[in-house]
Amino acid sequence: MRERTGAAVLLEAAARCGVKLCIANPGTTELGLVHALDDAPSIRPVLGLFEGVCTGAADGYARVTGKPALTLLHLGPGFANGIANLHNARRARSPVINIIGDHASWHLAADSPLTSDIAGLAAAVSDVVIRLERGTAMVDQVVNAIELAQGPPGKVVSLIASSDFMDEIVAMNDAPVIQASVEKQSAVLDSREIETTAQALLKAPAPIVLLGGAALRERGLRAAARIADVCGARLLMECYPAYAEMGGDLPCLERLAYFPQDVLAQLGQAKILLADAKKPVSYFGYAGQPSILTPPEQLIPFRVDSANVVQALERLADCFTNHRRRPRIAPRTAIAVPASDTLTPIDVAEVLCEHLPEGAIVSLEGSTCGGPFLERAHRAKRHAVMTNTGGAIGQGLPCAVGAALAQPHAKVICLQSDGSAQYTVQALWTMAKENLNAVVLISANHRYGILQTELKRALVDISSPATSRLTRIDSPSVDWEALARAYGVPSVKVSSRCALTRELDQALHIDGPRLIEMTLP
Amino acid sequence: MRERTGAAVLLEAAARCGVKLCIANPGTTELGLVHALDDAPSIRPVLGLFEGVCTGAADGYARVTGKPALTLLHLGPGFANGIANLHNARRARSPVINIIGDHASWHLAADSPLTSDIAGLAAAVSDVVIRLERGTAMVDQVVNAIELAQGPPGKVVSLIASSDFMDEIVAMNDAPVIQASVEKQSAVLDSREIETTAQALLKAPAPIVLLGGAALRERGLRAAARIADVCGARLLMECYPAYAEMGGDLPCLERLAYFPQDVLAQLGQAKILLADAKKPVSYFGYAGQPSILTPPEQLIPFRVDSANVVQALERLADCFTNHRRRPRIAPRTAIAVPASDTLTPIDVAEVLCEHLPEGAIVSLEGSTCGGPFLERAHRAKRHAVMTNTGGAIGQGLPCAVGAALAQPHAKVICLQSDGSAQYTVQALWTMAKENLNAVVLISANHRYGILQTELKRALVDISSPATSRLTRIDSPSVDWEALARAYGVPSVKVSSRCALTRELDQALHIDGPRLIEMTLP
Repeated sequence: MRERTGAAVLLEAAARCGVKLCIANPGTTELGLVHALDDAPSIRPVLGLFEGVCTGAADGYARVTGKPALTLLHLGPGFANGIANLHNARRARSPVINIIGDHASWHLAADSPLTSDIAGLAAAVSDVVIRLERGTAMVDQVVNAIELAQGPPGKVVSLIASSDFMDEIVAMNDAPVIQASVEKQSAVLDSREIETTAQALLKAPAPIVLLGGAALRERGLRAAARIADVCGARLLMECYPAYAEMGGDLPCLERLAYFPQDVLAQLGQAKILLADAKKPVSYFGYAGQPSILTPPEQLIPFRVDSANVVQALERLADCFTNHRRRPRIAPRTAIAVPASDTLTPIDVAEVLCEHLPEGAIVSLEGSTCGGPFLERAHRAKRHAVMTNTGGAIGQGLPCAVGAALAQPHAKVICLQSDGSAQYTVQALWTMAKENLNAVVLISANHRYGILQTELKRALVDISSPATSRLTRIDSPSVDWEALARAYGVPSVKVSSRCALTRELDQALHIDGPRLIEMTLP
Repeated sequence: MRERTGAAVLLEAAARCGVKLCIANPGTTELGLVHALDDAPSIRPVLGLFEGVCTGAADGYARVTGKPALTLLHLGPGFANGIANLHNARRARSPVINIIGDHASWHLAADSPLTSDIAGLAAAVSDVVIRLERGTAMVDQVVNAIELAQGPPGKVVSLIASSDFMDEIVAMNDAPVIQASVEKQSAVLDSREIETTAQALLKAPAPIVLLGGAALRERGLRAAARIADVCGARLLMECYPAYAEMGGDLPCLERLAYFPQDVLAQLGQAKILLADAKKPVSYFGYAGQPSILTPPEQLIPFRVDSANVVQALERLADCFTNHRRRPRIAPRTAIAVPASDTLTPIDVAEVLCEHLPEGAIVSLEGSTCGGPFLERAHRAKRHAVMTNTGGAIGQGLPCAVGAALAQPHAKVICLQSDGSAQYTVQALWTMAKENLNAVVLISANHRYGILQTELKRALVDISSPATSRLTRIDSPSVDWEALARAYGVPSVKVSSRCALTRELDQALHIDGPRLIEMTLP
């Protein structure tokens, strides 16, 4: 029999399930767990100065590795600061395990200042919320939580850890028996269904294969390309993929448009196969435009999920091995522009495509440069792109932190709009603290570009006083170069394509983080 | 009949109820309200770059004025970023009205990326959540919400505003009839009860009057002092008051201690009168220490609430007009220290007490300098202090923003620890944007001091690897001087009492914001 604290029992269970990372912003009620991390050497503790950094980093880590990291957060209000990026993680179907500290169980009735409805807050943004029991009983709960989180599809699981249960001594057998996680059995694919889908694809003129989720990695992409070659299909990817492999010799995908009328024009009357992608819907509701952008009769039946989509695409492609190839609809090509002394979003996209190193991971937030980059990314070397899956802004910098923690030898590029960067700006400190290989490119146009775009579409005068005050962030303009240095990240400001090329090239050849503030119109 | 948008109807109702301020971080679903602010000239729109800045500023504004400001926040995840400071606002019993935009009502079923459980998130931290109806029906809802919020006690009320209801045209009579808010009838005080309480006070040896909430303003304090003079009572204030008037010729109060054993020692066996203060409880639960720090028999019956506590204290004091004064227990006095070339928290407190201008408002977050200041604040000129009522950190800077917006001619001092300052650091930008008279004093010791204090009390080695990594924020140390400049706030670093004196004096004689980074051991 060994004696250990409940916190040590919890961490040991997580470590035996393969958890390697704990991204924490602890408070008093989590100190038992902080201390126990000293005796859990296989779990790396990383500090975030704000909880949204922790949850966004856990999301980024999960997108890259497919494995859950732990977050360690302080009671209800601390956890609440992490909700926005958990919303994104959930939309990304990323596995994440939150450990939320709570008061000692016997102290809750006192209603002391930090007492709050943790379970209620967690429920709104978790797939599962579990209040940990005391002693050895929590081992099974932790193991189950991690299996649940891993999916597929990945899930956000929140564990509420009462501080007394973490602090108290637990007597237990030497090594708790951890059931090895059984490989999930995917739903067996029905050969007749696959054949029916294949026939529907062949019959449809220029059908669309819309790829999302697990289908956007190499195997899925190559299978989809084989299908497209035979069926003359267009390959599209979701507008906001969680993790998409791109570039090199991978097939080139069109990106699904953002505004509903653009999506309708893009899809036309084509029959659509959804490969782990959600049915296209309008991002927001606009008067006179539909919410659902594809009627059911436009969809080709294809009953697959994250767990078996890749296998299903390959089986589909195999149906066509004896078919002749149909001419494939050419994807849109990017417009090349000449080099200049100013800097536009298109320049940024072009420079980044040209200089992106093999195996880079791009964390992309904001439309200003994100849109132009995604149009061209197929021309870059082989890389992966993560985007904001849930629309809760402040995802790009933390997601880059998580990716860099997951793959220390890859170059992580964070292509980040300035408005959204503010919500989790504290991520810069963790980049410096952990000396992460992250290059942050800030698109500094000092306005909420998407809001101004929406207002112009609605024919509102964006220069009117209140509207201007609430959509411009240019008086004062945030000095990103100074901000980065304040957090210990070396930085520079550029305002020409040539300076960006030089600074990006240099940043990619140095270890550790760098921030480049790009002055844009 | 006039025709206006739903958004205009909402804002007009709020304006007619006296709302003067809307602190916003809007997104696409709030653009109808943003545009409508152009036609609501009596409501000042102020932008926060992060939602926690907006909710914390609304709290600060409410503490100073007693009136609710509007916050305007974006759907579930945007609102979630404001939850931590709403938790504090609720503990402060501050009136706050959140307007949370939502998708068009007909678009919710599409489950587009930003769809989330807004009502669930809001319920966890609001006293009341109201989904606004369409058209003129929302006028009554808004008026009721504002009346509810105003209390007393103040309440957090969240209104969910569907974007289609905000955008659609409403035909209504020229001026909507707004019921003038009826002055709330306080519970009538029972003379016999007051007399019984007076007798109990007189009978008790050295009783304690513990003041909180509404009792900590001038009238309550002076009445309490009259009671103390006669009864030989000690006057204490809550450990974390929402808004306490102090200094000048106001009576000097002891502050209730933080750790439970200190509270027990401080209260001893004295009989305690609670004047709008909560019953003392331990902040966290510690093994071997009680949660509730005063048994019922220690409390002197005094059934009052926020609405009538001041009147009750005055009536009590009036009972004693014919009594001789008993010698009053002297409050603790501060220990004076000589000036030196280094800077300690006690130096900071001494300098601030000496230089605090008449009518200043101090927003105080963090124990490093906050504790020493509150021990001495009675020696300063007349001022008011706001503290972190709910323990959700990131409250000090936004609360200072709200106070400065409420009283543009007062000097607002934000005495702020560096760890907690990070959670809502974006408040600095709003200080610059609005040219607020706020002087931010950052206690830069580059560690989570309270966590290290707790760990030392638990005999944990704070230099062990994980513990050290998760409680120190010194590699790199955040450069607050650069951070402030990045947000447009002039700044300086000081590391001696003499430099602090000079820089504080200068900052107090200049309009607009300043930040002084105080290097502390």
